[in-house]
Amino acid sequence: MEKTMEQQKETAQLITPSQLLEHWLGHRRVTRRVIEAFPEKELFTHSIGGMRPFSEMVNELLGIAVPGLQEIVSGKTTELQEHFDHGNSKAKVLEAWDKSTEEITKLWNKITLERFQENIVLFGQYEGSVQSSIFYFIDNEIHHRGQAYVYLRSLGIEPPFFWERN
Amino acid sequence: MEKTMEQQKETAQLITPSQLLEHWLGHRRVTRRVIEAFPEKELFTHSIGGMRPFSEMVNELLGIAVPGLQEIVSGKTTELQEHFDHGNSKAKVLEAWDKSTEEITKLWNKITLERFQENIVLFGQYEGSVQSSIFYFIDNEIHHRGQAYVYLRSLGIEPPFFWERN
Repeated sequence: MEKTMEQQKETAQLITPSQLLEHWLGHRRVTRRVIEAFPEKELFTHSIGGMRPFSEMVNELLGIAVPGLQEIVSGKTTELQEHFDHGNSKAKVLEAWDKSTEEITKLWNKITLERFQENIVLFGQYEGSVQSSIFYFIDNEIHHRGQAYVYLRSLGIEPPFFWERN
Repeated sequence: MEKTMEQQKETAQLITPSQLLEHWLGHRRVTRRVIEAFPEKELFTHSIGGMRPFSEMVNELLGIAVPGLQEIVSGKTTELQEHFDHGNSKAKVLEAWDKSTEEITKLWNKITLERFQENIVLFGQYEGSVQSSIFYFIDNEIHHRGQAYVYLRSLGIEPPFFWERN
């Protein structure tokens, strides 16, 4: 049955696309503060138990978010690419982060509500729906950022508040 | 405008209540495996940078999920309570985890789609909507579990796969 835009707007939504975008952007603001909290050197070198330095985890996040959304919007499969040249500069990582945030916002508005339930195979290998893929992007950011909190604490640095999203 | 149940079912949803429950239960299965992966002693003692042992973080998660949902379902304000007596037994923590998972599933079915956008003040202090509160519960679990991954790696233990949710 066809519905007008007006009718769709009236229907209850668990979470709307604009709410989910704001939720994600709130998390990205926290992650940005976590990047900032690292000393210049330790962002690229500090590690516990053989894990990657946080800069490498951030590269993974950068490699997933915009390329993933681009693929969702365009329908064109791209290859997962997680290596950016940040030249061990925190300023460059933050710049890439901000550029990625801008791109996410632009791409988001091209995803209609109907598309979130569509099945896709992301980066040619990850099967799921548009919504499950996007939740994976967000959850993966929270997961690695949680690890960065331990890195910061082990360096004697107090991380930003987890619940402060502005 | 009133709509029949049938019409509502037909309307596109970014994520449905049952999909979000399954998403959360998937995360809870991963968290359960993380609890299991800790050696009996280190679950209650291992710490990095002055942070809490993972058992204390799990107590926080137990103190939020079911009590939070109970409050959402009943509308009755409860006090945040994060101290359970697990007697330093991993088996008891896992038992409490499983009981909590069962309760979540039961309570979930009492939350209608319309309620997710309702504004609430959880535990008498956290303002938000039902959906933002529930996403906080899930995100907070991912956040602390990410920290547990570092604890496990620092103990030379390989954590369960983040992406394996079955």
